[in-house]
Order: sequence, then structure tokens, then C-alpha cells
Amino acid sequence: MHLLLLVLDLVGTFVFALSGAMLGARRRLDLFGVLVLAFATASAGGILRDLLIGAVPPAALSDWRYPAIWLSAGLLAFRWSPLIERMQHPVRVFDALGLAVFAVAGADKALDAGISPMMAPFLGMLSGIGGGILRDVLLAEVPLVLRAELYAVAALSGASVVALGHALALPDTMTAMAGVLLCFCLRLAALRYGWHLPRALKAPVDRPD
Amino acid sequence: MHLLLLVLDLVGTFVFALSGAMLGARRRLDLFGVLVLAFATASAGGILRDLLIGAVPPAALSDWRYPAIWLSAGLLAFRWSPLIERMQHPVRVFDALGLAVFAVAGADKALDAGISPMMAPFLGMLSGIGGGILRDVLLAEVPLVLRAELYAVAALSGASVVALGHALALPDTMTAMAGVLLCFCLRLAALRYGWHLPRALKAPVDRPD
Amino acid sequence: MHLLLLVLDLVGTFVFALSGAMLGARRRLDLFGVLVLAFATASAGGILRDLLIGAVPPAALSDWRYPAIWLSAGLLAFRWSPLIERMQHPVRVFDALGLAVFAVAGADKALDAGISPMMAPFLGMLSGIGGGILRDVLLAEVPLVLRAELYAVAALSGASVVALGHALALPDTMTAMAGVLLCFCLRLAALRYGWHLPRALKAPVDRPD
Repeated sequence: MHLLLLVLDLVGTFVFALSGAMLGARRRLDLFGVLVLAFATASAGGILRDLLIGAVPPAALSDWRYPAIWLSAGLLAFRWSPLIERMQHPVRVFDALGLAVFAVAGADKALDAGISPMMAPFLGMLSGIGGGILRDVLLAEVPLVLRAELYAVAALSGASVVALGHALALPDTMTAMAGVLLCFCLRLAALRYGWHLPRALKAPVDRPD
Repeated sequence: MHLLLLVLDLVGTFVFALSGAMLGARRRLDLFGVLVLAFATASAGGILRDLLIGAVPPAALSDWRYPAIWLSAGLLAFRWSPLIERMQHPVRVFDALGLAVFAVAGADKALDAGISPMMAPFLGMLSGIGGGILRDVLLAEVPLVLRAELYAVAALSGASVVALGHALALPDTMTAMAGVLLCFCLRLAALRYGWHLPRALKAPVDRPD
Repeated sequence: MHLLLLVLDLVGTFVFALSGAMLGARRRLDLFGVLVLAFATASAGGILRDLLIGAVPPAALSDWRYPAIWLSAGLLAFRWSPLIERMQHPVRVFDALGLAVFAVAGADKALDAGISPMMAPFLGMLSGIGGGILRDVLLAEVPLVLRAELYAVAALSGASVVALGHALALPDTMTAMAGVLLCFCLRLAALRYGWHLPRALKAPVDRPD
């Protein structure tokens, strides 16, 4: 695996682990529960990506650096959660950075594995949103990806920059940085200004199905 | 992939996307949320099937026709949801058709991949129920497969027809049609007449565990 | 697959199916729902493990002994649930045994597949906790692994014994027995004495994120 991909993956692992551990601490789980949540949030997206492109065993399970990273992030969040809580929306900001980094790394690794540039952004999106989905499902909540502003679209945009750059043969590092920046800024701006699209028209009657 | 399998897969993608998008619209998600739900419901079963038989990357992520289909279905459901709601149980009917089509396609693809005719129906069942399970889990609900009448059994029956036909060397198209029809009719009849099996005997005391 | 692994896998399938079916019966699902829950709980861990090490199609879907086992366990639990409920915490005890057996079998199979002894325990842990997670997620509950005492750590400990024994070239059967025993006893003791670790410090304010 080339260096760029590894760095993105480790950064994503760190920030997603922080977001999972913070939510766990807020729900008053004990240290074990917090660490399991850190692991699940940090690893789900990358493992899903690796399964889908046939790269088994997944990097997150065969490379010792991944457990070292999410374990540190989980312990950090556990110990200093009141401090981290003083930030603005800590869970959502870490989540947005993880989304951006994993979406870009996912598209990159998919292209490496020979997926066509037209479909690689979908794989990037999946590995970006996977961690947050598992975190929220484990806590029996409707995932952020369904409730939040511009979530999956931001991941898709970031991943598309990478695919486009690849098709135009631009330098990898540059397009990766641009993709991360685009996804992260889109998501933060949507969060800040409450951007969202219209909702469906109300059905005439509300009834169970 | 042969034509029959492709057609079944695309029909299943369309109707499952409709069922997911309708539920999303009913929960008042915005357009992004509705499309994510359409994607998840439409793709989960097929992706699971492809992962389980080692056909990576999954067709739903490497073929542009799948996103085109679920995107159209999602937009359609979003725009005309009040109209579609006037049908009888729209979510459950689309869900039943998707269940039937994916169960049959799943068993068919499993046989193609060399799974034994005795186990192929289980793979068909899994790819039939996968989409609906993910849809309901994402919305933090107990999945239809646990609450509903004859759900998994209908999928298993439809998939078994395909495996049986394969063992008897009957023509593919005929057994596939019979399998879809059997599963769909079983599920609709169960829905219409409220068929269900007995529940377990009540335990002497109710207590947490 | 060698005999030891097969035996562990079948025992784990049986007890996890019991735990899933008992929970389903307690929630008053009908027979179909109970059997689906038995299948999901019994198979999720092993299927996840096989996917992660690239052993497709997974044993739980290609070997007829697995469906025979979880079907029997499901029917048993359905028919005699009031009787089984008289035991102390039946769901948690069966769950603990399944956890121990699958954690050990998972680590063992991962080592066989060439995963390094340092990472094999994580794979064992995943296949131990996978079934219980899916069971609880399907019932829209926060999984035991997040709420319960020493859950993932017990699985990790049992799996680590196997990896350690492998590194020291000790006999397989002995280390497997020791691993199962360690995990099962740790989990039961934690359950009995309510062992848990400290929770995170309370954040200054409770606010949505």
C-alpha cells in the first residue's frame, strides 16, 4: 500500500475512533464499551471497502498500526472527554474529517484495485459512511447519514475529485488533498448553515405499513 | 452474467429502491436521506450475495446500470410519494416483489458459482432479505423479517424452486418465473390473510436478562 | 477443516442459536421470526470471520450440518422456552458459551489462514461478538457488547490464549480448551459479580450533537 493511502487511513482511523469513543462516553458506557465503539467506528468503513474490492484480510485487521491508533484515540477520548466536549460539536467535526479522509482513501484504493473511475466514488462513499453508520446502529439510533445535511453527497463529491484526478492523470497527492478539503468543507458548511434539501410532500394520510 | 440474472437483479433493485425511498419520505427525511435509503435497500442484498460467493467487486458497485436504476426509483418515489401512498400497502408490496426477485436471482447466481443445490436456497434467502433488513435497521426498527408473516419462508420457497429446477435440469427461465411467482404470492397471501405461525408459550415470569 | 475447529463451530452455532431463539420467544415473535433470529445469531460471527479471511463461500452456508444444528436449537428453544427460562439468565449463559467457542475457533481459523499471531485475536474477537451484535441490532437494542461487563475483553483473552499457544507450538486441542475456559469463566464471573470498569467523567453539560 502506498504511503498516501496509509496516512489517510490512519488519520481516518484516529478521528473516527475519537467520534465513536466520545459518543460512548456521553452515553455513560464503561471503558470497555467505549473502546469497542472506538474500534467499530474506526474500522467498519475500511473493512467494508477491503471486503468489497477483495483485499482480504483487511488492512485494519492485519496491520498492528490500526489497533494502536484506535486504542490510543479511545483512551484519549475516555480520559479527557469533558475537555473535548468543550469544542463545538466534537462528534460531528471528527466524524466529518473521518468521512472526508475515508471517502478519498476508499476511492483511491478502489482505483488501485482496478475499479472503473465511474464507480470508484461509490466505493469511496461507502467506506466513508460505513463507520458512522455502524456507530449509530450499535447505539440503536438512526444514522447521521440519514438525518444529517449533505452527508453522503459530501463523501461522494470528495471521492469524485479523486476519480476525476485519476482519469486526468493529475498527481495523486494533490487530488487527494483537494478531495479531502472539498468533502470536509462541504460537510462543515452544511452543518454550520443547516443546508438541506426539500423533504417529500406530505402523504394525505399517515398510516402504518 | 447471463441476461435472466441481470434482468431479475435490475427489477429487484428498482422495487427495493422504491420501498426504501417510500419509507424515507414517510419519515420526512430530505432528498439526500431518501436516496441513501433507496441505495441501501436496493444494494444490500446483492452486495451481500456477491461477497458470500466471492464475486468481488459486487455487480451493484461495478456496473453503472445499478446506480442509474436506484437513483431513478428514489427520485420517482420522492417526487410522487403522495400518489404512490394511495396504493394498498405500497412499501410491503414493493418489498415483496424485491424479496421474490432477489431470492431467485441469489439462488441462481449461487448455483452458477458452484454452491450445492442444497445450500443455494439459503444464499437466495439471504440476498432476498438483506435489503429490507438494512432498510429497517437504518431506521432503528425491528426488521420486517422478524415481525412479518411468512417472510423468510417465502424467500426460501422461491429460491428452492430454482435449486430444484437446476437439479432436475429444467429450463432456467421457467423455474425462475415459477420461483418469483411462488415467493411473491405466498408473501402477499400471508399479508392479506394475516397468516402466521403460533408464538412461543409465555414464560412464567417476565424478567430482564 | 480440521475436526477441532468443526466441533467448536458446531457447538457455538448451537448455543448462539439457542440464545437468539430464546430472545425471540421472549419478544413473542412467531415461529418464523424465532428461527430467523436463531439463524442470524448462530451464523453471523462465523460468516463474518470467513469473509474476512477470504474463505468463501462461508462454511455456515456451504455445509448442511450448520442449518441442521441451528434449526434444531431454534425448534428446541421455541418448544421449551418456559422450561429454559427457569435457568439463571439463560440467554446470557448461552451467549457466553457461544462467545468463548467462536472466539477460539475464529482465532484458530485465522491462524490457519496465515494471519499473524498478533492480529489473530482480533479476528477471533470479531467472530465471537458478531452473532450477539446482529441479534441485538435486529431487535433494535443496544448490543450486549456495549452494555455488558467484560464482554469483548473476555473474547479477546480467550482468542489470545490460542494465538499464544500457536506461537509457542503447544498442542492445539489443549490451548483451545484453555481459551474457551478462560473466556467463559471471565464472562460468567463478570456477570455474577457485576465487574465493570469506570465510566467516563461526566461532561459539564448534556447537549445534543
